[in-house]
Amino acid sequence: MIDSLNPPTRRQLLTMIGKTGGAMALYQAMTVLGHAADSQFNGPPKLSGARPGSTVLVLGAGLAGMLAALELTKAGYKVQILEFQNRAGGRNYSVRGGDTITELGSTQQVQFAPGNYLNPGPWRIPYHHRTVLHYCKELGVELEHFAQLNHNAFIHRKDAYGGKPQRYRDLYVDFKGHVAELLSKSLNAGALDTAVTAEDKAKLFQAMREWGVLDKSMAYTKGMHVGEQRGWERAPGGGVNGAPIPGDVGTLSDTLSTKVWEQIGFYTEHVMQTTMFQPKGGMDHIGKAFAAKVGKLIRYNTKVTKIAQDDKGVSASWVDTKTGATGETHADWMVCTIPAPVLNQMDFQISETKKAAIRALPYGNSVKIGLEMKRRFWETDYAIYGGHSFTDQPIGLISYPTGNFFGDGPAVILGAYPFGIGAYMLAGMTPEKRIAAALDQGQVFHPAEYKSEFRSGATVAWSRMPWILGCCATWTEESREKHYQDLVAMEGRIVLAGEHCSYYGCWQEGALLSSLDAITRLHQRALAA
Amino acid sequence: MIDSLNPPTRRQLLTMIGKTGGAMALYQAMTVLGHAADSQFNGPPKLSGARPGSTVLVLGAGLAGMLAALELTKAGYKVQILEFQNRAGGRNYSVRGGDTITELGSTQQVQFAPGNYLNPGPWRIPYHHRTVLHYCKELGVELEHFAQLNHNAFIHRKDAYGGKPQRYRDLYVDFKGHVAELLSKSLNAGALDTAVTAEDKAKLFQAMREWGVLDKSMAYTKGMHVGEQRGWERAPGGGVNGAPIPGDVGTLSDTLSTKVWEQIGFYTEHVMQTTMFQPKGGMDHIGKAFAAKVGKLIRYNTKVTKIAQDDKGVSASWVDTKTGATGETHADWMVCTIPAPVLNQMDFQISETKKAAIRALPYGNSVKIGLEMKRRFWETDYAIYGGHSFTDQPIGLISYPTGNFFGDGPAVILGAYPFGIGAYMLAGMTPEKRIAAALDQGQVFHPAEYKSEFRSGATVAWSRMPWILGCCATWTEESREKHYQDLVAMEGRIVLAGEHCSYYGCWQEGALLSSLDAITRLHQRALAA
Repeated sequence: MIDSLNPPTRRQLLTMIGKTGGAMALYQAMTVLGHAADSQFNGPPKLSGARPGSTVLVLGAGLAGMLAALELTKAGYKVQILEFQNRAGGRNYSVRGGDTITELGSTQQVQFAPGNYLNPGPWRIPYHHRTVLHYCKELGVELEHFAQLNHNAFIHRKDAYGGKPQRYRDLYVDFKGHVAELLSKSLNAGALDTAVTAEDKAKLFQAMREWGVLDKSMAYTKGMHVGEQRGWERAPGGGVNGAPIPGDVGTLSDTLSTKVWEQIGFYTEHVMQTTMFQPKGGMDHIGKAFAAKVGKLIRYNTKVTKIAQDDKGVSASWVDTKTGATGETHADWMVCTIPAPVLNQMDFQISETKKAAIRALPYGNSVKIGLEMKRRFWETDYAIYGGHSFTDQPIGLISYPTGNFFGDGPAVILGAYPFGIGAYMLAGMTPEKRIAAALDQGQVFHPAEYKSEFRSGATVAWSRMPWILGCCATWTEESREKHYQDLVAMEGRIVLAGEHCSYYGCWQEGALLSSLDAITRLHQRALAA
Repeated sequence: MIDSLNPPTRRQLLTMIGKTGGAMALYQAMTVLGHAADSQFNGPPKLSGARPGSTVLVLGAGLAGMLAALELTKAGYKVQILEFQNRAGGRNYSVRGGDTITELGSTQQVQFAPGNYLNPGPWRIPYHHRTVLHYCKELGVELEHFAQLNHNAFIHRKDAYGGKPQRYRDLYVDFKGHVAELLSKSLNAGALDTAVTAEDKAKLFQAMREWGVLDKSMAYTKGMHVGEQRGWERAPGGGVNGAPIPGDVGTLSDTLSTKVWEQIGFYTEHVMQTTMFQPKGGMDHIGKAFAAKVGKLIRYNTKVTKIAQDDKGVSASWVDTKTGATGETHADWMVCTIPAPVLNQMDFQISETKKAAIRALPYGNSVKIGLEMKRRFWETDYAIYGGHSFTDQPIGLISYPTGNFFGDGPAVILGAYPFGIGAYMLAGMTPEKRIAAALDQGQVFHPAEYKSEFRSGATVAWSRMPWILGCCATWTEESREKHYQDLVAMEGRIVLAGEHCSYYGCWQEGALLSSLDAITRLHQRALAA
């Protein structure tokens, strides 16, 4: 009931609407209240009243599995988790000095200095991934800013500027300058007189002049006004020689040859926009925080070989990878978060449509390579603090560490993060050759320092990780259309969860939202059973 | 000498070139080595060999004055500083709970909770302000990221969207979408066929489609591709209802009415680009770090009334504002960092040209208002973490705190930061009325929370600060042309320093670079004398 003297809080109002009007009414109300646009997350699920003694078996102790265990336990279920690895977290993973990385065909001993780390999997959290942010807060995971858009980082294209990397800011300012000049030329020529009103045309002239930092004749040319954005041939200073000297601007052809609009577009993606975050000290602090809550429910080193269900319950057959012991775990319900490429190889008693969906679900490949350097030369010598330098070489980009800006001592650059062809090329190499390739390619940005300051490397090729055999789900429009609902539909007593069961493929937010959706449906089914 | 076996470091090379070839050769070498473009700073000055017993009187214990004292002391001079206030730092200033703010005509007792602060003066440090960054490192000032560009913050224009604030990301995506659509229309119509080559024209089509997220018919329309950047009517989620729903896009006319290009331009300014920094816990940590080095040289509460010089030395007459005692301090040389509006009112024995420069130097006005809120509703309820929401009301903008993201308890929003007319309007009010006006105007962004969550406020109108009577130097092209060199020229035994004696007016970098330039010239003059 709404107390007429004390108006309800937004949350109270939404809860009330949800109870009385159902999900659609709730969604409409959320939209009106301005919440839904940013995230489908609207607080943790309020599950309660599980039938006494009801049990749930969760397969996989990644974020989706552990969140399911956490919330189902709260609801009154007895939960057990089976996990293939000897650690919780799944792709929520950080490697540090002393760790061993085991790929198919190789192992690496990580040599990083204390405090340094590489996040082989997820590494950044957008401001609107409210589920991740909520559980970080609830579980006490300390977040810090993640430097995403750095105007001073580089773009390298083999066929642009003779292969010499350019500062993002220079190309960005050149690009909008040329676009503005061309559009104002078109306006002047009357080419758009039928498309825009006279009033908008006047505003567009003003917009192009100001946005494009054009000169008085509406041309994009070298000058102080451009220097104010693009930076300088000689920077402003103090005293008698303080006057800055503007630098040359790039030509239209040179600018277009860099395809800088791809990076502008990248930085504008909703999931890539500022402000971003990372857990301080490594992404795996999230997994560890979940494990601190549900770790006692996890059976590690447990390779599931068969999944079955009947009218009365579910079962998973398994082998203990340490002892060789085999067993079978039974429960009333199951949340299966095993990645599709692995699930696809299992004896899984499920419908043909779901099997087809699992089989058809494409997983992307990706490789990360951490390069520990003796010192932060990118900060001291290049004034680059965090962010990414992009290249059209196979490594795709290099990314500078956000944590501990201005720190002394060694620091880890992300030396490669390709998807697609670049990832397959690198994944085909041994870790040592991968690291050497990353040094070869990345030195285009920092030729004097990259190899001489190198200390040690570590790399993960996700297609070679035996417990997932790929990086993450990369649905196409067609595969989604055909298989997505089949994949996520609860079938009997089993529901799947994970980033592959969401529209946020490859993001932790997708894993968590999928898990919340899956357990909410499981709970409804269990209560109705 | 270059050791042929051990190639010199960049720094050694530059030092060597500077010694043998002079400033111009040094500058050319720096340009070749890629340094000069970012900053005129090339390490602290290596002054040494002051004549035994030489003395320097520094007027003003702001950053310029304290840096001069620090480096001149290293060079062997005996330095004394006279400071009007009872603290060091000048505009490098933070106010906290328990502080008193004394303006002409009013005093405020600041009520902020422990740990909270307002930086009334400088508040952010660009990545290329190498002098500030250098001394922060040298003096042990801990810096943290400053959130500058936040795609999720608002833009409010009284005459756009019925006065309803829009997310920056929405307007930014709409703006480039419409520009891309119009430019591709012009290209299609052949309007630019004489201006661009056929090859560039083809690239421009591709650029406009990708950069503008245009649809297949090269139009900027609602759709999934736009949602990927602009965000969603319903965000992507997990499980059965995971599919996102794209939102409407803004029309060309609506987009132009917001003048969003002004903000795009703002974020693109060289001094406003990411990555930015702030000292953790308040900007005054820089001033305090300098004072920890040179504080013992400072005479506080000392109002200089007269400055004179002759062939043998300089003198400053002063009044102790606490005791009323008067005195006169003598030295061989002087660095005067007193701001022009105050210097202009003094008995200053200097040439008419320098007096004219001091008189003509325009100082901008600015007002800052800190609003302490009971909780970080902008983070929890709006997903805004740092950055600025802009308005065309007198307050100009509100800015969200960077430090302590996700923190519980009260936090301080910068509730106003106008220059120009808005600043004069607010400076004309009492502090209480200023704070009330900031609450009135700022609530446009957060109507449900802004007033109900308000806890306490603090404000500084720089035109009302008795020791400066303005915010900072805002040279025009004309005033610079006419007076700048007169202002910075060393005259006899006196040299001026401060941000007003630089091309980085209103920035700490300008104050420091000006100081380095001034003391370098002073030292040369002293050695030659």
